[in-house]
Amino acid sequence: MAETPIRVTVWGEYRHERAEDHVASIYPDGMHVTIAAGITENLGEACTVRTATLDDPEHGLTEEVLAATDVLTWWGHQAHDEVTDDVVARVQRHVLSGMGLVVLHSGHFSKIFKTLMGTSCGLRWRNSDDRELIWTVDPTHPIAQDVPQPIIIESDEMYGEFFDIPAPDELIFISSFGGGEVFRSGCTFRRGFGRIFYFRPGDQNYPTYHHPDVRRVIANGVRWARSDRALRSYPEIRRYEGLTG
Amino acid sequence: MAETPIRVTVWGEYRHERAEDHVASIYPDGMHVTIAAGITENLGEACTVRTATLDDPEHGLTEEVLAATDVLTWWGHQAHDEVTDDVVARVQRHVLSGMGLVVLHSGHFSKIFKTLMGTSCGLRWRNSDDRELIWTVDPTHPIAQDVPQPIIIESDEMYGEFFDIPAPDELIFISSFGGGEVFRSGCTFRRGFGRIFYFRPGDQNYPTYHHPDVRRVIANGVRWARSDRALRSYPEIRRYEGLTG
Amino acid sequence: MAETPIRVTVWGEYRHERAEDHVASIYPDGMHVTIAAGITENLGEACTVRTATLDDPEHGLTEEVLAATDVLTWWGHQAHDEVTDDVVARVQRHVLSGMGLVVLHSGHFSKIFKTLMGTSCGLRWRNSDDRELIWTVDPTHPIAQDVPQPIIIESDEMYGEFFDIPAPDELIFISSFGGGEVFRSGCTFRRGFGRIFYFRPGDQNYPTYHHPDVRRVIANGVRWARSDRALRSYPEIRRYEGLTG
Amino acid sequence: MAETPIRVTVWGEYRHERAEDHVASIYPDGMHVTIAAGITENLGEACTVRTATLDDPEHGLTEEVLAATDVLTWWGHQAHDEVTDDVVARVQRHVLSGMGLVVLHSGHFSKIFKTLMGTSCGLRWRNSDDRELIWTVDPTHPIAQDVPQPIIIESDEMYGEFFDIPAPDELIFISSFGGGEVFRSGCTFRRGFGRIFYFRPGDQNYPTYHHPDVRRVIANGVRWARSDRALRSYPEIRRYEGLTG
Repeated sequence: MAETPIRVTVWGEYRHERAEDHVASIYPDGMHVTIAAGITENLGEACTVRTATLDDPEHGLTEEVLAATDVLTWWGHQAHDEVTDDVVARVQRHVLSGMGLVVLHSGHFSKIFKTLMGTSCGLRWRNSDDRELIWTVDPTHPIAQDVPQPIIIESDEMYGEFFDIPAPDELIFISSFGGGEVFRSGCTFRRGFGRIFYFRPGDQNYPTYHHPDVRRVIANGVRWARSDRALRSYPEIRRYEGLTG
Repeated sequence: MAETPIRVTVWGEYRHERAEDHVASIYPDGMHVTIAAGITENLGEACTVRTATLDDPEHGLTEEVLAATDVLTWWGHQAHDEVTDDVVARVQRHVLSGMGLVVLHSGHFSKIFKTLMGTSCGLRWRNSDDRELIWTVDPTHPIAQDVPQPIIIESDEMYGEFFDIPAPDELIFISSFGGGEVFRSGCTFRRGFGRIFYFRPGDQNYPTYHHPDVRRVIANGVRWARSDRALRSYPEIRRYEGLTG
Repeated sequence: MAETPIRVTVWGEYRHERAEDHVASIYPDGMHVTIAAGITENLGEACTVRTATLDDPEHGLTEEVLAATDVLTWWGHQAHDEVTDDVVARVQRHVLSGMGLVVLHSGHFSKIFKTLMGTSCGLRWRNSDDRELIWTVDPTHPIAQDVPQPIIIESDEMYGEFFDIPAPDELIFISSFGGGEVFRSGCTFRRGFGRIFYFRPGDQNYPTYHHPDVRRVIANGVRWARSDRALRSYPEIRRYEGLTG
Repeated sequence: MAETPIRVTVWGEYRHERAEDHVASIYPDGMHVTIAAGITENLGEACTVRTATLDDPEHGLTEEVLAATDVLTWWGHQAHDEVTDDVVARVQRHVLSGMGLVVLHSGHFSKIFKTLMGTSCGLRWRNSDDRELIWTVDPTHPIAQDVPQPIIIESDEMYGEFFDIPAPDELIFISSFGGGEVFRSGCTFRRGFGRIFYFRPGDQNYPTYHHPDVRRVIANGVRWARSDRALRSYPEIRRYEGLTG
């Protein structure tokens, strides 16, 4: 439908990378730059990508930026509480009005994701070099195209059930981990006029966002999350007099 | 499963009834009292019902009351903003921990419902004596038992689509109105360990909560929303070392 | 994703049009030809459309035709039983292997739809010039793009609930009719590797398939139902020795 | 709601047990007898249980038996094709009319399950003593009550994704296996007026149906699958003249 390039904003907390040598060695320019590169790698001229981070003014998410963003991706971890409520409300309003949102890994516990889900978004976790296998359970979904069955990530943080989210509209991927844990790792949600994709992989301590299949899925998610609606509008309550009113 | 009586708290805003003669003539003791009577009428000794209202201290929803409530029903309209954020957070915490919630009519725009849904909860409305027909589309659901197909409400406020909610886990009822509008009028949602039922009928200007089929559905909803879990607990995030950990 | 033209086969029973003057006056070349024209009108060079009918050899649905069909549309009514079980099994196999299927109106009672749903597909009906209003309840869905809220069809057959189908994966449209009946009139289902869209309007006695919004929705459905998978394959059971097997 | 005992019929193929010493040593009276005992163990006087097997006349599933069955459980494996189409059609009719159905393990490939699902019901499998962990992902569901997180089965056959079923109405359990495979192992489906629960564990070569947690889940499933509707009736198509018709 829409044929113009998808305008993507990749948001990154960008704290671990500046404070921890180990993380910096994996993501020397920040995780957001690596994520952005993966999207461009896959979508090419079908997208234009910019980045924004927590310590930018208004976290880089001004009204102007959001109005010019078709799909926002979100990675945060240790500083969820530093994201101001005003910016969270602004992002929520844009999502409900039609902006796509791709939430990555520890973003499950971000204010914006918890606000959009209405739940605690709690889960089980363990950081000890688990192998993750990501199995496709909805092979017709656009987000599941062009990846192997399963995707293999040699080492990543473990997330396990119960993951306290609303039952997803579409469950695309399920992961298993070294201890036999499972996780609903690829989920879609429609909220207002916006599409949301949650994708699990990606702890800061592992080179997950350099993994070609992970990059492919994120790019597929960006493409899927872009709205088909021509105009962005908020789903207002309104009085209605009927067809002849 | 649980065999003890369901402990129900019926919450009512209780403002229209005290300020408007027309509403007082329909609900002389308040809508909450009528709603409570309808639940008792249907569930009898299988429930114990108390009421709470906006102008009670802490809106009648103290920690003690919620801890002793299996299912809370909610009707509010003109004073949504007067419900304090503290009480909303407390109710959300109890729902995610396993308390059932039945949201009625204009409660769609309450803080607690919007918080649990994550969406705007906007819709179309018109107050002009529309006939509402409520059709069952999920006849196996416990909430749909013992009501006619369709339920007929001679006169009520109209609510029309698009209703900005997450796709419900179960869509039980769809209504039509005099102008040909339609509405997803009976919806369930599971959030955390809690069950939520939204049911549309019931404007303060109409005697809807005296209608036997409406009372039956609300009672069915209360019975369905009560948790099977023995203990109430919040779905916390937690570190997990594995089966042998 | 796929950028080649969508290869569409429009299947029509083509009996009413040859036996009933009233129907012939509305659809002189057959309903299938009108439906095909509506798809071409909307998708243009993004599709190639051919037609097939019941009285063609093998109903026009040979292995060769289906293998070269990305999306099949289906309209049948009085002669469902004349479709051979062999052809039904062949179409099912292609749908589960990735062919899209758009089922129209009375096709709800076709062998192929009942086979894919597993239910009776019963409903209520009345043929007496009801006005149908079609409301979008999933405005983010690609199939709901570029149509008014509501779509107005001045006169068509009525279908009412309970419609005995599995709960759809996505409920896009709900219709109301002159008697206040409602119907889940736009539903998607994923089965195997195939996508199925059911769309209600279209009795042979009414000029429904000349209606521009109806034509738009069918074309949107065709575009949505085309698989993203490069190859068609059946979801076989298979022994699996594991990653190193 | 209904308070009379649930009338359960446990259907077993009962061939492996008579032909293979190893299976006979685990299930000397047949798997169906063990499954029946597990239901009685958990539901006690809340149920009455009988059994039926493939080699009984009409497979033990006469019209009279089905009419007196609230919930049927199904285990079959090597002789799916020997179940006659007439009996499959009869069981389907009863399910759509309100009889509950609990399908176990290799019953995924039975005629009745494939007929009700409309899909291939294919999957991956491996028989090599995998440990299965069964994780609850819908902790509010009645079927998930009173079992540990996770259920641990020391040794069973492996089933892996992609499992070709319609997206379940409710996904309750996800399993992992020794090779890191995952499987949607506890799924509900509503079809017609009937409720269906699929539960994965239970190969004939393992003592799975002696496992107390597995028995608990099957009993929970039986209780859940029993209809709340007072009368059994088929969801017929019918002409409807409207409220005043």
